[in-house]
Formats: sequence, structure tokens, C-alpha cells
Amino acid sequence: MNPVELIRRKRNGEILTTDEINFLIQGYTKNKIPDYQFSALLMAIFLKGMTTEETAALTEAMLHSGKVINLDSIKGVKVDKHSTGGVGDKTSLILAPIVAAAGVNVPMISGRGLGHTGGTLDKLESIPGFRTDLTLTEYKKVLRKCGVVLIGQTKNIAPADKLIYALRDVTATVESIPLITASIMSKKLAEGIDGLVLDVKTGSGAFMRETSDAIDLANSLINTAKAFNKKVIGFITDMNQPLGNYIGNWLEVYESVKILKDESRGDLFELSTNLSGAMIYLGGKASSINEGVEISQSLINNGKAFEKFCEIVKAQGGKVRYIDNPEKYPKSKVIEKVYSKNSGYINKIDTFALGMAALELGAGRMKKEDKIEPKAGIIFYPKIGDKIRKGDLIAELRCESAKKITFVKQKLYDIIEFSDTEASKPELIKRIIN
Amino acid sequence: MNPVELIRRKRNGEILTTDEINFLIQGYTKNKIPDYQFSALLMAIFLKGMTTEETAALTEAMLHSGKVINLDSIKGVKVDKHSTGGVGDKTSLILAPIVAAAGVNVPMISGRGLGHTGGTLDKLESIPGFRTDLTLTEYKKVLRKCGVVLIGQTKNIAPADKLIYALRDVTATVESIPLITASIMSKKLAEGIDGLVLDVKTGSGAFMRETSDAIDLANSLINTAKAFNKKVIGFITDMNQPLGNYIGNWLEVYESVKILKDESRGDLFELSTNLSGAMIYLGGKASSINEGVEISQSLINNGKAFEKFCEIVKAQGGKVRYIDNPEKYPKSKVIEKVYSKNSGYINKIDTFALGMAALELGAGRMKKEDKIEPKAGIIFYPKIGDKIRKGDLIAELRCESAKKITFVKQKLYDIIEFSDTEASKPELIKRIIN
Repeated sequence: MNPVELIRRKRNGEILTTDEINFLIQGYTKNKIPDYQFSALLMAIFLKGMTTEETAALTEAMLHSGKVINLDSIKGVKVDKHSTGGVGDKTSLILAPIVAAAGVNVPMISGRGLGHTGGTLDKLESIPGFRTDLTLTEYKKVLRKCGVVLIGQTKNIAPADKLIYALRDVTATVESIPLITASIMSKKLAEGIDGLVLDVKTGSGAFMRETSDAIDLANSLINTAKAFNKKVIGFITDMNQPLGNYIGNWLEVYESVKILKDESRGDLFELSTNLSGAMIYLGGKASSINEGVEISQSLINNGKAFEKFCEIVKAQGGKVRYIDNPEKYPKSKVIEKVYSKNSGYINKIDTFALGMAALELGAGRMKKEDKIEPKAGIIFYPKIGDKIRKGDLIAELRCESAKKITFVKQKLYDIIEFSDTEASKPELIKRIIN
Repeated sequence: MNPVELIRRKRNGEILTTDEINFLIQGYTKNKIPDYQFSALLMAIFLKGMTTEETAALTEAMLHSGKVINLDSIKGVKVDKHSTGGVGDKTSLILAPIVAAAGVNVPMISGRGLGHTGGTLDKLESIPGFRTDLTLTEYKKVLRKCGVVLIGQTKNIAPADKLIYALRDVTATVESIPLITASIMSKKLAEGIDGLVLDVKTGSGAFMRETSDAIDLANSLINTAKAFNKKVIGFITDMNQPLGNYIGNWLEVYESVKILKDESRGDLFELSTNLSGAMIYLGGKASSINEGVEISQSLINNGKAFEKFCEIVKAQGGKVRYIDNPEKYPKSKVIEKVYSKNSGYINKIDTFALGMAALELGAGRMKKEDKIEPKAGIIFYPKIGDKIRKGDLIAELRCESAKKITFVKQKLYDIIEFSDTEASKPELIKRIIN
């Protein structure tokens, strides 16, 4: 096979065979096809697309570039969730213990913060002692014991994805549905799961701003999961405002604990229990998503979900005393309360800018080598449709540097758009694709 | 400026500014933009196109990556011709002396054989002693003396084109009208010409098989030439069969000499005198193309064109005795006559395959480092529409190896398609775009 001929065919909108896609991925991973040919191919895929079959073949080739974990030795159904990322999106911390408490295994491999969005690993690591770098043996041991485990991607999972992602990043070929699909699914399938719940976000704080793009991506992910005989449910959910009120690593653990202790309700509670409900349904412990949601709520209500969370933290080396008593956690050097300068209804929130503001305070990385400040972040109170009066408390900023606080505080005023008339609240769950 | 952002914009079908195109070409030529980004850009240009203004800006950026020859010190109008390449296309050898004999300067920089097509430089070098590697000083000296000079591209002319062409070749981005246009025009404009006649070929032996593609390319070349205030005329001409009957380097010099001595007529005579007629018209020595054609024919008729050809050969170091008396030229080791096995009308000729057959006999290079055999080639007699009887002489093969001859002879039968009914002869000059 000749790479130039395959690039030419994709460029002409033709369909590549599974063998041809394997040849390209193996060739690139083994350094036999140079970057300049692979980037031309990526641009051709970006502009000409891929069929469901091609996307599945691409996913499979990337999956088999590395290790595929075998969880056959662990009894019961294994279900995971993947979110395309947002601001304040901490549902993994809440739903993982709920679903495990319901008797469904959750072998979850998560990522770090990307761009303006946070990452589950960074959040978990804000709990002193919590280890996300378990070996495969430890991973299976914790999963067997707790019914849930939360780790990061190891080097030998889908190495082709790591290479291809780095090239996409510098050649303007990131926002391609087949390429995003293969990147996500090759990693998720490597976990050895039976079922997957997808949370595809749309809005001002999501990578897919338009709902129609989010639906296209969800369908592509679902079709690919089905091609591998996995049970799958896709949610299209709102990201026009942060999920919950807390943005920043420890702040998000804190809010998750409040939800798990049944001390807080709202959008975060609603979405977390819907996603966990779908996972419990896929795991065979409920006869419908709704029944799964009811089970989820009762597991919060009776304390079992919080108990499971403490069990995970302990199993992975974290200090449970901070979970039991979050007030013992160290405080930020600078805490600044922000009060509204305007009166009116909240009309729009620039959620992308809000995520970037939290990142500037230390909640994320500007450069790859930056260190995260676990305590840093923003507590952001207003929701779209709320009525605010001048002088109302709208946010609290937490940071180690007074200078950064002043800078970010100024930006915060531009993030909120007011209107004189009441704006309608965005629908949290826009669609469930089964 | 950020290359990724510019690739993204072209990918989205947006228009790049002249400054942005300059930044990209300078960055790539100076090794500041890596191959993998430039190839993604090339694929985006391939699939999203470029406006006339972008194509002109690309041409200008590539032109100014190297030296632009200044011919202001040479009096009179300077006109060149460019052909997109074909089989048996030797018009340059015929029209250059005609146009110079008419008093118009012809500073011609030509290329070598590419793929199945021959190159003017290789043909000229089949004349013992003929030098195409003149220095810039010699180039101007010959042009001043003879009114015509025939050389090859020097290293410092449009170096960006050399780099970009090599990358296009291995990334399936060759057949793009804006990229072809910038490649051709950046080199032609570097010659310091005032006018240009374009011969864009279409048919089974051309790079553009479809006439509509040839017209699109011609329009793009014409628009770009006009953007640089050059006088330009475009011809769309037939390449469904070889031009003339001789294919191979010395064989083509031989046939050109026959035309210049007025010993042969036909399609080659007709096209050469039309192209030279247009050049004479652009050079201001005729009031119309037709008058230019009449002047051309009279310059053949009165021997002035042939005289000029001998003058060029002598000025560039070639041995004129082979031109005066071509029978003195060495003969091929193996000469094989081919007779028809069929009777009927010639319906189609696979001219691409015919070019490749000549190449296999030694008339061209299979690999870059191959040496050309100047005597090798094919004399091919049939024209589309001709009536042929079984046993008629259809071709003569010339080569140094009997084994190759046997191999090529077998192929030759498949190159010609017969029909029982008379096929119409293709129109030689399909369109003239002014």
C-alpha cells in the first residue's frame, strides 16, 4: 500500500477500507509514515469526513496500537461515563460512588484539565494523598474491592491517539467528528467496559458550541460504541453556564461531597443522578433510566453513596478526614468577594471566559508544565434567568496572589450579560439518545 | 501571525491576505514552518481553493523567494511560451527560432521530462555539445546576439517552488489549479518577460484529461499573468494523440528540423505556427494572431527560421553539422518496425501509455537518477480517424536493448483502439482565450 494513493483517495472523498486504515495508523505509530503525510491525511479527513464504518475502523486501529485491559476476571457489568468537558463539571466524582453503591462496576480512566475545562484527575489529586497512578494490578484490586476505581491514562493505552492528537493540535485538525470520536472511543474501549454513558455538552462553555454539532458527535460516538457491541446512552446537556457553583479542583470536591451528603440540590444534583441512573440501567440494576435515577437519589438519601466515596478515597490513599470534615482543608491566601455593579436579569454567561478566569487563578495550566493550585478557583452564584440587584454577592475568588485576584475580578464583570426582561433558563438535559 | 490560525482559516474556506500568504511562503522557505503544517495547508488549499487575488499573491511570494531576472538592458519585447506538457510536444524547438526571426525576443527557460511527457532541455541536449546550463551573463549575451536563448531553470529561480513541489508530490496535492498556477507563473515571471503564450493541453496524453479542467487552468494562468501586467494568450489544444509522429529526444529534434526546413506539414506544423503567430502578435510584430501565423509560415518558407535555429545551436555550443545533415547522427542498436495486426479505423490512442512506452525505451527517466538515451524513442504513424489495414506499418521503435523492444512492442498493440466506423478527428486547437 502507498500512503500517497490513500491520501489521494480520502482527498477525493472515497471510502478507505479497514486494512488501509490499519496500514495508515500502524505506519504512523511505527514512524514509517512521516508527519507531513499524516497531517495531509488528517486535513483530508477533516474536510471530507468518514463513514461510520471508517470511524469504527480508525477507532479499532488506534485502540490496538496499545494495551486493551481485560476485566473478565471481575464479576458483574462494567460501565463508565465520558463527558466532552465543561466548566464546573464534577459529575464523575458524584456518579462513580452512586453507581458502585448500586452494584454496577465503574472502571473509570479520566483525564486532566484541557483548555478552559477541568479534569477529574486534577480534582481527585486535590484530596491529600489520593493516588491516580495505580498499576494495572492495583487498578483491578481496587475495582474488585470497591466496585469502582478512578485512575489516569497509562502510557500503553492507545499510544496512537497521543501522537495523532499532538499533530492535530498544530495542524488545525482538532474539531473533526470522526477524529474526536476515534480519540475518545479508542481510550474508553481500552478500559474493558461493557457499557458507556456519554455526556456531550453544548453551549458557551463547551467545545461544541452548537447543539446540532453536539448531536452529530453524540451519534458518531454512539454508532462507534455499537460497532464494538457496547451498550450506550448519549445525553446532550447544557453548558451555557457552569454546572453547580464551584469551579476549581478542591472546590469541586467540596461541592461533590455536599451533593453526596444530600446537603445541596440544583443542576449538578439533577445531571449527576440522571447520568448515574442511565449507568445503573445499562448495568442491569434498573429496568429504566428513571428507575436508575430513583435508585441514585435513594443512595444519596440513605448515605450509601457518600460511604462509597469515602471507601474509594481510602482505597486510593486519600485522607478521608478532609472528606468527612472539609472545613479542615487549608484556606487560600487571598479570598475576594465580588458584588454586582448592575441590576437586572442574568441573560448570558460567557462560560468559556469563566473557565479561563479560574485557570488564571491557578485552577488549571496555562502551559503543560504549570503546577495546579488545588485550593484556587471561583464560587460563582448567578444562574441564567436569576434576578440580581446591584450589591448582591455574585462570586468569591480564591487564589494565592492578590495581583491575580484584581486582574480576574475585573474580567468577571464582562462575563455576565444582564437584560431588563427575564431570560428563560436553559434546558439542562436537551436530549437523551438511546 | 500564527500558522495554525492561518491553516484553520483556509480550512474554513476563508480568504488569506497577501501578508498572510507571504508569511506562510517565507516561513516555509526559511524552514520556520515545518513540513507537517505546510502539507496540512496545501491540502486545505487543494480542497477549498484560492481566489484570483490569493493565487496572484501566492505566485508573487514564490517568485520573490528567489532571483527575478531583469532584461531591461535588452531592447524589444520579450515573449515566451509555456506548455502544460504532452507526448511528442516539440513546438518550443520550432517556434523559438520562428519568433526570434520575426524580431521578437524569446528568453526561454524550460524544464526536463516529467512523468510520461518529454522536456525541452532533454531534447536540446540530444544535439552533441548543446549547453543548457548557461550562466546569467551568457544567457543575456546569447539573447542579445540571437534574439533567443534556451536554458534550464537555475537554482536561484523560485526556490520556494522547488520545495513546495517536492512536498505536493508526496502528499497528494499536485492537481490543484491555484497551486499549479503559482508553480508555473512564479518561474515564468522570473524570466523577465513582457508576454506569454500558454498551451494548455487536454486529452489522454495530458495532465488535464478533461477539457473543462484545462479551461479552468488556462483562465487561472491568464488571470495571474494579467495581475502582473503581462500580455497573455491561452490556447486549449488537443493531446488525445501525439503531436507530430516522433517521440524521443533526438527523434523530436529531427522532426523539428524537418518542419523548419519545410519538409513536413500536419498537426505539428499547424500548432507550432499558431503558437508562434500569437507570440509574434504579443511581441507587436503582427496586428493579429492570424497575421503572426502568416509571418511564421513565410519565415519557414524563406529559410529564415531554420537559419535562426542553426544560429542558436551554434551560439549554445551545439554541433550544427547534425542539424544540417541529420543522417550523420548515430543510429540505435535495435530498430524494430511494428505492423498492424488489425484492420479498421483508429478510434482512440492511449497517449499516456504511448509516452510511458517511449520512456521505457530510454527516452525518459523512470527514476530521478536515470540517464536518458537520446536516440531512443518511437516513430508513431497512425492518427485518430485514419484507416489502417492489417500489415500496415504503424510504428518504429528505437532502443539499445532488444529485450526492451520486445516488451514495448507487445504493449503498443493495446495502445491503439480500432473501430469499424470512421471516428472523427479531434479538433487540434479547441479554444483561444485572449
